Amino acid sequence: MASFALGWCEADGTPATGGGGKGVRQALAVLGGQAVGAPEEAVVAGAVAVELVHTFSLVHDDVMDGDERRRHRDSAWKAFGTGPAVLVGDALFALAVETLARAEGAHGAAAVRCLSGVLRDLLHGQADDLLFESRPWAGPQAVRVAEYEAMVAGKTGALLAGALALGPVLAGASPQQVEALTEAGRHLGAAFQAVDDVLGVWGDPEVTGKPVHGDLRRGKKTLPVLAALAGAGPAARSLEALLGSGVPLDTGAARHAAGLVEEAGGRDAAEAAARRHAAAARRCLAGGTFAPEAVGELVALSEFLLDRRL
Amino acid sequence: MASFALGWCEADGTPATGGGGKGVRQALAVLGGQAVGAPEEAVVAGAVAVELVHTFSLVHDDVMDGDERRRHRDSAWKAFGTGPAVLVGDALFALAVETLARAEGAHGAAAVRCLSGVLRDLLHGQADDLLFESRPWAGPQAVRVAEYEAMVAGKTGALLAGALALGPVLAGASPQQVEALTEAGRHLGAAFQAVDDVLGVWGDPEVTGKPVHGDLRRGKKTLPVLAALAGAGPAARSLEALLGSGVPLDTGAARHAAGLVEEAGGRDAAEAAARRHAAAARRCLAGGTFAPEAVGELVALSEFLLDRRL
Repeated sequence: MASFALGWCEADGTPATGGGGKGVRQALAVLGGQAVGAPEEAVVAGAVAVELVHTFSLVHDDVMDGDERRRHRDSAWKAFGTGPAVLVGDALFALAVETLARAEGAHGAAAVRCLSGVLRDLLHGQADDLLFESRPWAGPQAVRVAEYEAMVAGKTGALLAGALALGPVLAGASPQQVEALTEAGRHLGAAFQAVDDVLGVWGDPEVTGKPVHGDLRRGKKTLPVLAALAGAGPAARSLEALLGSGVPLDTGAARHAAGLVEEAGGRDAAEAAARRHAAAARRCLAGGTFAPEAVGELVALSEFLLDRRL
Repeated sequence: MASFALGWCEADGTPATGGGGKGVRQALAVLGGQAVGAPEEAVVAGAVAVELVHTFSLVHDDVMDGDERRRHRDSAWKAFGTGPAVLVGDALFALAVETLARAEGAHGAAAVRCLSGVLRDLLHGQADDLLFESRPWAGPQAVRVAEYEAMVAGKTGALLAGALALGPVLAGASPQQVEALTEAGRHLGAAFQAVDDVLGVWGDPEVTGKPVHGDLRRGKKTLPVLAALAGAGPAARSLEALLGSGVPLDTGAARHAAGLVEEAGGRDAAEAAARRHAAAARRCLAGGTFAPEAVGELVALSEFLLDRRL
């Protein structure tokens, strides 16, 4: 089950033929380590821990959200049942902790503390994400864009921050370097999520592997929608009325809603947020004492994140 | 939700009036620490981590088993939903790791490694427990008593071993002392589970808070039943036929099955196993360099475990 969750095999145990993920976290781990000249074993231990935590969080997230598909396949709970999926997530989580606790060198405890912080932020973010679902689209209880951004800093940013920082922590990098990498990772996470939110509404299902207008039809609170609702024009009010009706959106209504989000400026706002966060990440890396080649590749990675289609 | 899971409040947030648990793990943590003269802060950090892991495992276990009741109240998933219960379990788990990683002194990394081992054994045990459910009552695929005992060493033993050993590890106790305490904890866990299994069939529902013959009616593979089936007499074969029929047991059939388990010697075997493991735990503590008063109290605790009714 763990192999399946990691994308290494199919549900029946045959080796996987699919392409796996995008490798963003692994790339961040390698580049974060290179940025501070960390030895390879520290980089690998950090990358492995982050990958295990990431997979754990996907497995449990799909249980929480009831998502049946993940990376063009059944999600783990769909393939094996809810109980086994909860357990395999726990096991991946435990293995992540073990990986750092057993890492060589004097900084294992610091790395586990760093991972603890990542987990704390990640779980807070996931909890807020769950809570947002039951809040209304309009009125004083509506989710504000600032609350959404704080949630994303945890849910998505924490793990990318961990990917950049864990190897350096294991290698004994300075607190200033670790802080700059952590902050850069949070911004990259926010940029990544903003792009993801745009793809969740306007992405090509053939490429993303997710249903068209999926996030809209599920009533998910994402940045384009929240930014659109925060606007003052007639499209924002029509969108508010459509979503607030509580009626599930069929194909036509979802297409109409997507148009209203775009008309009310939600798509532009999300794309601007992505660019803003990517620029902030680059600033975090520029001022420091990092290896220029690694910084150059991190900048290229941030541009890839803005341009991606899946 | 975490407060609810820890038994501190009701589902609506009002302070809990119930009695909480038996305090066995907390007692073990205090006595394990006293046995090696560990400072109070190490003992407390170890005890807190174990309690958090225990609560995490109960919350996720109830999700996996679909159990609706826990300690005379709704289980966490029943009270809050499956998704939130998965998340609160994850948060308790993360907090356990953080508690040890942030503990003062030079042995935080060793303590996290120890906790990793506990988690690995615990999750292996839970996985085996789940797998046992789908195996038959008879034939070559039937669960053997030895397999059951290995599962219990993980599922129940690991956490009691952790309760005894974590404080000492944090305090820098010798490997020999840690190993003896770990082994003693595993045996106490096995004794505890054997008594629990007996109570799961013959316990008073008023006291245990669980339905009468609950484990039998759910077709759970427990020590008394497996030991009974391993016997050669006619009661064992009747029991095998009854359970192997696949028909859910009603009240009368469950009472009949309980009688057959007893007649086939399953209850005696489980009670003997409990006594044997308690004695083995006492031997682990006797040979060592432990404070006699703490050992005396641990022996008293092992006797309490054998005599308990809930």
